[in-house]
Amino acid sequence: MKKLCFLFSLCLYSLQILAQPPAIEKVRKLRQEKEHEWLNEFIQLLAIPNEASDAYNIQRNASLIMDMMRKRNIQDVKLLSPATKDAPPAVYGEIKVPGAVKTIIFYAHYDGQPVDPTKWAKGFQPFTPVLVNGKTADAEKIIPLPPAGSPVNEDWRIFARGASDDKGGVMSILWAYEAIVKSGQLPNCNVKFFFEGEEEAGSGHLQEILLKYPNELKSDIWVISDGPVHQSGNKLICFGVRGDANMDITVYGPTRPLHSGHYGNWVPNPALMMAKLLASMKDEKGKVTIKGFYDDVTPLSPAEKAAIANMPKVDEQMKNELGFIKPEMDGYSLQESLMLPSLNINGMQSANAGKLAANVIPTIAMVTLDLRLVKGNDYEVQQQRVTDHIKAQGYYVTDKDPTAEERKQYPKIAKVIKYDGYNAQRTPMDLPIAKEVVEAVRTTANGTLVIVPSLGGSLPLYKFEKYLKANTISVPIANHDNNQHAENENIRIKNLWNGVETMAAIMLMK
Amino acid sequence: MKKLCFLFSLCLYSLQILAQPPAIEKVRKLRQEKEHEWLNEFIQLLAIPNEASDAYNIQRNASLIMDMMRKRNIQDVKLLSPATKDAPPAVYGEIKVPGAVKTIIFYAHYDGQPVDPTKWAKGFQPFTPVLVNGKTADAEKIIPLPPAGSPVNEDWRIFARGASDDKGGVMSILWAYEAIVKSGQLPNCNVKFFFEGEEEAGSGHLQEILLKYPNELKSDIWVISDGPVHQSGNKLICFGVRGDANMDITVYGPTRPLHSGHYGNWVPNPALMMAKLLASMKDEKGKVTIKGFYDDVTPLSPAEKAAIANMPKVDEQMKNELGFIKPEMDGYSLQESLMLPSLNINGMQSANAGKLAANVIPTIAMVTLDLRLVKGNDYEVQQQRVTDHIKAQGYYVTDKDPTAEERKQYPKIAKVIKYDGYNAQRTPMDLPIAKEVVEAVRTTANGTLVIVPSLGGSLPLYKFEKYLKANTISVPIANHDNNQHAENENIRIKNLWNGVETMAAIMLMK
Repeated sequence: MKKLCFLFSLCLYSLQILAQPPAIEKVRKLRQEKEHEWLNEFIQLLAIPNEASDAYNIQRNASLIMDMMRKRNIQDVKLLSPATKDAPPAVYGEIKVPGAVKTIIFYAHYDGQPVDPTKWAKGFQPFTPVLVNGKTADAEKIIPLPPAGSPVNEDWRIFARGASDDKGGVMSILWAYEAIVKSGQLPNCNVKFFFEGEEEAGSGHLQEILLKYPNELKSDIWVISDGPVHQSGNKLICFGVRGDANMDITVYGPTRPLHSGHYGNWVPNPALMMAKLLASMKDEKGKVTIKGFYDDVTPLSPAEKAAIANMPKVDEQMKNELGFIKPEMDGYSLQESLMLPSLNINGMQSANAGKLAANVIPTIAMVTLDLRLVKGNDYEVQQQRVTDHIKAQGYYVTDKDPTAEERKQYPKIAKVIKYDGYNAQRTPMDLPIAKEVVEAVRTTANGTLVIVPSLGGSLPLYKFEKYLKANTISVPIANHDNNQHAENENIRIKNLWNGVETMAAIMLMK
Repeated sequence: MKKLCFLFSLCLYSLQILAQPPAIEKVRKLRQEKEHEWLNEFIQLLAIPNEASDAYNIQRNASLIMDMMRKRNIQDVKLLSPATKDAPPAVYGEIKVPGAVKTIIFYAHYDGQPVDPTKWAKGFQPFTPVLVNGKTADAEKIIPLPPAGSPVNEDWRIFARGASDDKGGVMSILWAYEAIVKSGQLPNCNVKFFFEGEEEAGSGHLQEILLKYPNELKSDIWVISDGPVHQSGNKLICFGVRGDANMDITVYGPTRPLHSGHYGNWVPNPALMMAKLLASMKDEKGKVTIKGFYDDVTPLSPAEKAAIANMPKVDEQMKNELGFIKPEMDGYSLQESLMLPSLNINGMQSANAGKLAANVIPTIAMVTLDLRLVKGNDYEVQQQRVTDHIKAQGYYVTDKDPTAEERKQYPKIAKVIKYDGYNAQRTPMDLPIAKEVVEAVRTTANGTLVIVPSLGGSLPLYKFEKYLKANTISVPIANHDNNQHAENENIRIKNLWNGVETMAAIMLMK
């Protein structure tokens, strides 16, 4: 019986292989030959710190990516610099294919979220990429890259900031192009490359780039390689993303830290003030209580509703995997809650808790909020609603630390810093070229491709629509459990290789 | 006119000097000769880290203090070690005065609160003591100690962990004894010295010491040199202290940090859970809402009420100095609020806020609470009330990180760690020997001595009463703005010298 099962599985597997278009088979074969060279190249890129505010290292990342592109004979490789001096540039290049009628721009970003190295697991460092024989950061499972010719297990992972978000995206695009050409083929469209350098910092200068280089950036569609595939493990295509805007709020206690015995409960404690302020922002069912917060939401179209209904259900799997039983937003499925604007506490701090705690009244409490936006929301309006809510709780709101005079005038003071953000974007699900991308990716998807009207995550796609009137579609490649944005970020090798085939399929689509 | 004023001031000053008992004048003169030697000695002691859990350095502190005592011919200098191995010892010594009928034990502690060096001002380090020509930590005002013979301005301060809390207390006692003897005098009582090594860690082993050394620790009264003098700048004597007990609370979100876009508002955010939990602990008027929190408070006696009524009012001065206008506990004066049990947030943390913030859902949020207790409260009962309150908010309470099974069973989980603490203590205000101490200190107080039934701060005096049936009275010496327990802790030179005279006056009392 066992044997029969095995034979049957083997048959199925062969059928799958046979079902792949021959062009993609050639890409896979080439990739198998190149694995070691490519992984070494990837590790080299991951070793360069990539926070957008770190101009020196951003430049080093951009230079290395340009080298990689020139090595692959990509043309017109250059930096697209925004008008603002010293803001991170995008890396650009292009391939003109004789006879091609369509132009596709492939987007990824090479900058990453800020890192707190102290939070990474023992033996791991954000910019010391390591290969790990396991799913989680475990120093005992760090292994050397096997020598060329020895197999690299596809379940191994590479741990480093940017591994999945989004240097893996950059590399999958470059590797896909290389694999097509080196396997004796050519893309069926003109290919452009656009690698952004400040996506994780809010893409504050992206619009300057878009407005400055309209000729370079002409295309039929932008294909965005960023974010994770579906939690079910299936490939995913996404017609939109949520918008995003951050805010920092600081509230104030005494001007100097005080002994909690001599002053506690008489002098206002900023941690308690912050707790009350944050608690006022959501009700017991997890709905945001800020006035007007859900007012501007554009309803889903019938096609979007249908796509959501067709998505595999992963709620129970994710609850189990993430160790909780009751969602914050009671009565909503994961996908339903992602179709609403959100308010999330990214971090909260007041003096020290735990081992470093001292018996003090802290001087300040600080929180960073993350507002996600859906179609219909304007990020500045949402930020203003949060500010108005803070005022409605009796706070005097300023954008600086309060002066002695202000402290004498107002019982409750909040410093509110609004960061630049961007709105949500959704491409209509019936756009012909988008449908072609879907079909191309489906040929590499072993049966199941998940189609989503909007990702929970954010990308500045709204800006492409606004400033270039361009269409976008997101084709993520990373494993869902990649610790994106946090400590121990990682990408599974298999997802890199699947990503290469996905990007190649799009370049090869008729 | 100016000249007349000056002469008049000079006259007043001379009168004050003349009004001091001659024995104290001799002490002052001796101190003036010794200033440089003493400050060098103090700086040497402050340079040794002194967190109670740091056994190696605690031992170094104790050894140096014993050397200082032997140098002063104090007898029977030794460590009083608790039964528990490796717990911090107390340093002991004694002076038997021929014909003396009373025995006074002088208490101070040489351990300090935990330090977070990153929080100290630029150029300052907790265990690199510096002399500063100013009130606040300002690297530009760091000055070298002038050479012997040059004056040391009494408004200068020494910045270091333990400067005021409480190595300054240790030194003022040793210097007072030295000044009496070297100025050709003798104390009028037998003097015992007891310097504790784990006060800031909750005095967990103090009772073992008290029970193990009953003969050494026989006395008529313990004089406690710890804490600040009154905010008005006047000397202060205190008949009691509040009790103290800490708790750590951790609440749990997902098992790994998550991208806030892909999961925000569906996966429970522990920072929001913590905000709601803390917000539930106090009402809008700053009163603790935990059931039974104020139930066991022993009412103040008429003498205690009268003492409070006679205290200088500093509320407006302190609001101005600390930069706020509305107390947390609305309608209560500072002193009134200190006569109640309190609940203070010492620190609160969940992932990172501000510069290091990332767009994540944190995995945990943590808070450290500080419960102060007044006469009538039992610290374990108060801790249990907080725990019961957490349960009443729907939490499953455990004392470990939750298992996968627990996560599958309970929607809200809190880890609650209860630290050892101690109860409040109040010595009756009509105790004869306590009255004698008051009168002795009054002779050095230039007119105004503030008498307080209970300090806001805490000391394990309850244990002296419980295990030794001993009387205690607190005679603090530090400046009120000393940043005790926090970064940039400091002591004003003048307060050290006043402290020497205060301690000497008690040793010399008839």
